[in-house]
Amino acid sequence: MPLRVGVIGVGMIGQEHARRLSGVVTGAEVIAVTDLSADRAKAVAAETGARVYDSGGEVIASAEVDAVVVTSWGPTHAEHVLGAIAAGKPVFCEKPLATDAADCRRIMTAEAAHGKRLVQVGFMRRYDEGYRQLKRLVDAGRIGTPLMAHCAHRNPSVPDSYTSEMAMLDTAVHEVDVLRWLLDEEIVSAQVLTPRPTRHRFDHLQDPQIMLFETSGGARIDVEVFVNCRYGYDIRCEIVGETGAARLADPARPAVRRDGQEGTAVTADWRERFGAAFDAEFQAWVDAASEGTATGPSAWDGYAATAVGDAAVEALKTGGVVPVDMVSRPAFYTGEQ
Amino acid sequence: MPLRVGVIGVGMIGQEHARRLSGVVTGAEVIAVTDLSADRAKAVAAETGARVYDSGGEVIASAEVDAVVVTSWGPTHAEHVLGAIAAGKPVFCEKPLATDAADCRRIMTAEAAHGKRLVQVGFMRRYDEGYRQLKRLVDAGRIGTPLMAHCAHRNPSVPDSYTSEMAMLDTAVHEVDVLRWLLDEEIVSAQVLTPRPTRHRFDHLQDPQIMLFETSGGARIDVEVFVNCRYGYDIRCEIVGETGAARLADPARPAVRRDGQEGTAVTADWRERFGAAFDAEFQAWVDAASEGTATGPSAWDGYAATAVGDAAVEALKTGGVVPVDMVSRPAFYTGEQ
Amino acid sequence: MPLRVGVIGVGMIGQEHARRLSGVVTGAEVIAVTDLSADRAKAVAAETGARVYDSGGEVIASAEVDAVVVTSWGPTHAEHVLGAIAAGKPVFCEKPLATDAADCRRIMTAEAAHGKRLVQVGFMRRYDEGYRQLKRLVDAGRIGTPLMAHCAHRNPSVPDSYTSEMAMLDTAVHEVDVLRWLLDEEIVSAQVLTPRPTRHRFDHLQDPQIMLFETSGGARIDVEVFVNCRYGYDIRCEIVGETGAARLADPARPAVRRDGQEGTAVTADWRERFGAAFDAEFQAWVDAASEGTATGPSAWDGYAATAVGDAAVEALKTGGVVPVDMVSRPAFYTGEQ
Amino acid sequence: MPLRVGVIGVGMIGQEHARRLSGVVTGAEVIAVTDLSADRAKAVAAETGARVYDSGGEVIASAEVDAVVVTSWGPTHAEHVLGAIAAGKPVFCEKPLATDAADCRRIMTAEAAHGKRLVQVGFMRRYDEGYRQLKRLVDAGRIGTPLMAHCAHRNPSVPDSYTSEMAMLDTAVHEVDVLRWLLDEEIVSAQVLTPRPTRHRFDHLQDPQIMLFETSGGARIDVEVFVNCRYGYDIRCEIVGETGAARLADPARPAVRRDGQEGTAVTADWRERFGAAFDAEFQAWVDAASEGTATGPSAWDGYAATAVGDAAVEALKTGGVVPVDMVSRPAFYTGEQ
Repeated sequence: MPLRVGVIGVGMIGQEHARRLSGVVTGAEVIAVTDLSADRAKAVAAETGARVYDSGGEVIASAEVDAVVVTSWGPTHAEHVLGAIAAGKPVFCEKPLATDAADCRRIMTAEAAHGKRLVQVGFMRRYDEGYRQLKRLVDAGRIGTPLMAHCAHRNPSVPDSYTSEMAMLDTAVHEVDVLRWLLDEEIVSAQVLTPRPTRHRFDHLQDPQIMLFETSGGARIDVEVFVNCRYGYDIRCEIVGETGAARLADPARPAVRRDGQEGTAVTADWRERFGAAFDAEFQAWVDAASEGTATGPSAWDGYAATAVGDAAVEALKTGGVVPVDMVSRPAFYTGEQ
Repeated sequence: MPLRVGVIGVGMIGQEHARRLSGVVTGAEVIAVTDLSADRAKAVAAETGARVYDSGGEVIASAEVDAVVVTSWGPTHAEHVLGAIAAGKPVFCEKPLATDAADCRRIMTAEAAHGKRLVQVGFMRRYDEGYRQLKRLVDAGRIGTPLMAHCAHRNPSVPDSYTSEMAMLDTAVHEVDVLRWLLDEEIVSAQVLTPRPTRHRFDHLQDPQIMLFETSGGARIDVEVFVNCRYGYDIRCEIVGETGAARLADPARPAVRRDGQEGTAVTADWRERFGAAFDAEFQAWVDAASEGTATGPSAWDGYAATAVGDAAVEALKTGGVVPVDMVSRPAFYTGEQ
Repeated sequence: MPLRVGVIGVGMIGQEHARRLSGVVTGAEVIAVTDLSADRAKAVAAETGARVYDSGGEVIASAEVDAVVVTSWGPTHAEHVLGAIAAGKPVFCEKPLATDAADCRRIMTAEAAHGKRLVQVGFMRRYDEGYRQLKRLVDAGRIGTPLMAHCAHRNPSVPDSYTSEMAMLDTAVHEVDVLRWLLDEEIVSAQVLTPRPTRHRFDHLQDPQIMLFETSGGARIDVEVFVNCRYGYDIRCEIVGETGAARLADPARPAVRRDGQEGTAVTADWRERFGAAFDAEFQAWVDAASEGTATGPSAWDGYAATAVGDAAVEALKTGGVVPVDMVSRPAFYTGEQ
Repeated sequence: MPLRVGVIGVGMIGQEHARRLSGVVTGAEVIAVTDLSADRAKAVAAETGARVYDSGGEVIASAEVDAVVVTSWGPTHAEHVLGAIAAGKPVFCEKPLATDAADCRRIMTAEAAHGKRLVQVGFMRRYDEGYRQLKRLVDAGRIGTPLMAHCAHRNPSVPDSYTSEMAMLDTAVHEVDVLRWLLDEEIVSAQVLTPRPTRHRFDHLQDPQIMLFETSGGARIDVEVFVNCRYGYDIRCEIVGETGAARLADPARPAVRRDGQEGTAVTADWRERFGAAFDAEFQAWVDAASEGTATGPSAWDGYAATAVGDAAVEALKTGGVVPVDMVSRPAFYTGEQ
């Protein structure tokens, strides 16, 4: 009996996830969709065999829906996640869990009151095989206690609607989550450096940016975000420990020698780079949701990402070091992976 | 409505495929299994929710079975594949298609008489992302017309039951198929060089071996087979063309610097190296079988592999160059991919 | 007629250079040495066929000495360099040119008054083939206008006498010079981050450190200095430009596959990593000094390194961003490479 | 007192060596040159400060000449080497030592009669840092007993005067020497495979070729020679042993990411690839010749290369396996490196 999933919001990423749940992942079917655009909802429903609902609330309330995917506009996430928790249904929420930290705390309170995890946040890098290998190495003590992490997140280009704040909120947020997970420490402060911006940008945009984070244990993380680097989608991560250093591998691509050069393709976009991670993430979600619970990145992780994001956005404005304002980790979220 | 699959033979590889069809691939369920060992059949049936049948013939004949997977002992393959064709059912057959070339020809005749492809042979490398990238490069003309291919196939070790002939029939057979596919040419002769054997072997075993093949167009292929190399499972392939050379990438693994060395893990076994290729292979098979047909490596490819294998085994015995004895490609198999 | 060289100070590095001038470089001979330790001076004189002098002043004054190498204790550099300029003799000065910026300015004034370059400062990385290739790529516009540089400078260990300030003055000073050269811009401010220090350190030492520099044009440079990294001597440099990114290659070392790993040796120390660069540096110096002049890193470069060093040492103390206090580039040093 | 060198034959390679002895290597000066072309001899003499002699015989006989470099036309090598031995003078001879094996034996007899090594043959790869590292690894037992070697020797293009036999005599001869040295075994047979030739060739030329050698201990060596590969000068070597495999590194070159690719330059020609090896080779020769003797590749190595070359040229003609016809190693050449 497959998990019956309702998808709230079927824009680009919602459509991707609906197709993934229908055609790639085992053990699930999409039976309900809703979207602000009725046409878009109909098209996705037709493709996946789902029924169209009028609102997220109706999807959550439907007796036919076992679990919910929230891929609507960010500011609506908190409402739908809280709704799902109230209904006792497992919910996958794309990042951000909520656009402000207070809403994240409300979600944590509700989930803790429910007594069992229901919320999984869409930080898919934890399911990327490269990062998982890196974590195994770090956890096995192969590089000793981590002291620093050097990261880069480069996109070939972004649309005009991309703002300087999104470098943190949409882009570096993935590094924030995956580094918290890799180092198993919280981030306590943020600073943002603003290099000479590329001229291949929009006037409103500070690109690149270098984000500097400090962890609770004193480790330092630097993240270059460069979203108009032109040459490809390029994700780097090196962790330096007391006895060694480990580097995330680039995806394997054939090497071609011709015309005086050995050349290897750089991945073109996030779909190519993290497609398999999304598949693994949703398989894990379906497996957990089928048991009535959740796994992977939790509401606590969603809250931490939002809190760090708030600090970094403030740091971009002020130019200084901004402490991250976070509550203590509730007992409910202790021991989570 | 998922494809209802019957699996004939559930030894190690048959169990793997049964699990893959139940738990990884979408659109299929295993509903019938049979095996010489009734206990083994029962265990796999319990795990996958299938029913146990007394024989391959009954599996093929069952009205509940839409398509058949043949993973029994090699010498029985031909009988089951011919049975499936007679029943008009799509059939996936692990290599070899048949242990002698005459049986392969019988299968081709039967399939052509049926008028539509039903047979897919288990050469999973065509579904490996690395080889697929390599083929795209070659087909796009990035290295010009191929002139040579240099390959290596190394296993850490093999059991005592492994014989010198298996270096060709079980091991190099994968290179034979994938090179025929990459170069889009048939192999016309074989020679086998026998280096000083490793002392970490059984006395009966010539290991390593170097196989030399010539294609119909005059390209040369060398394949090192070294099945007790000890250090890992290592697959190499470089194709050299008139204007460039392209190399299969090693799987991406993190690089660790410690103790004066940068180290990267080598894959440990074929499951780690080709697990994703097996998944993709079976998804492709299920998709085609659901349409009542087959895709990928055909009975012709199975026949070619057997014919080349016969020549190479003879070459190992004689030490000389042995021409491959093959019929012309039937019109039915022209234009296949 | 070879260049007759006098070496002032034959500690470890002075001995190395004396041997290099005698036995590796063409066109020079060491004919005079002096050192605070008469025994050490005698030993080096015996080895190279030189005569022992009582003081640096006598070496500089000797009619038999055509050119001078200053490898004495840092605080004495300025005096000897000024002496050589006064004598009109080419002088190679190991870093630092002078331990304070005012002395560097005095040297520039004296050299400009002389009217022709006489001073070369020992920044050998500009002669490393890897950095030279990198510079050619950048200068050729292959990555567009540089926006950022990410560097690491790791030593396996340092002696107890190494202080936190030396991370800048002895270690990162090489990155400061080579980045000024690669980017062709001055550094205008410095900040130092202090990660959780390694426990494999001395109590007095902040290790690692991350230095952040901004250039006159707004490019950002980060330099990880980690001098007790244990695993090897490891130098990294990536320059990110508007249209691409270029990375310094690691020295070529054979790859060995065994025991489940592909391993490649990391260089063990600076001698192994930069030995060929030192050779090329001294050949260039001898060639220029034989013409009565100097080439490569100039007194201006020595001054800039000292000024940036002062700012970074201050930044380490204060934790804030410290502007670099520098005079304008004198016309005499314009157009130098 | 520098070694006074006479150079016999100052074509392209002779000029290179004359310049190297004058300007790069320490401890030598070129004082005599001769060439069939008087103009060419004059030009090189002017450049290096040497005197022009009328013949090789006069160079060898001159009391001013301490040691001789033979870089004349191959068929004249034996005469000049024998002349130098008769005169008791150290002699560096570019490959081949002699164009036929009988002459090589005559040279060995003469040198043994002299009682001390005087002859060094120009196999510069033994001085390449990459091959030296590889040899250290093999000698240290890091890969166990070698069983196979896979090599490639690719040139971007060759002139019209290049013949199919030269693929062995001028090109693969370097692999023959360096593999004999790496494996410390003699080559006992040769076979040559002839792939479909590139169309970017001259009609008279079989290009590429694959040479197969067997050693006295049963190891197998395959060498791809492809002298019109167009894309660069590319030298590969992997040695596979009982417990591991080691690969020659490509020269270190910066990696550039732009336009969807990571690209690294391939070396353009042998000068770029082996320039430093030539420098080291001549320094070693000058050091040994200054002591009145020779080091590195010996007359025995020159003889072995010629004998293997004869077999491979015969194998190219016949298509079969041709045994190498060699005398036993004279006691005089035992224990040489």
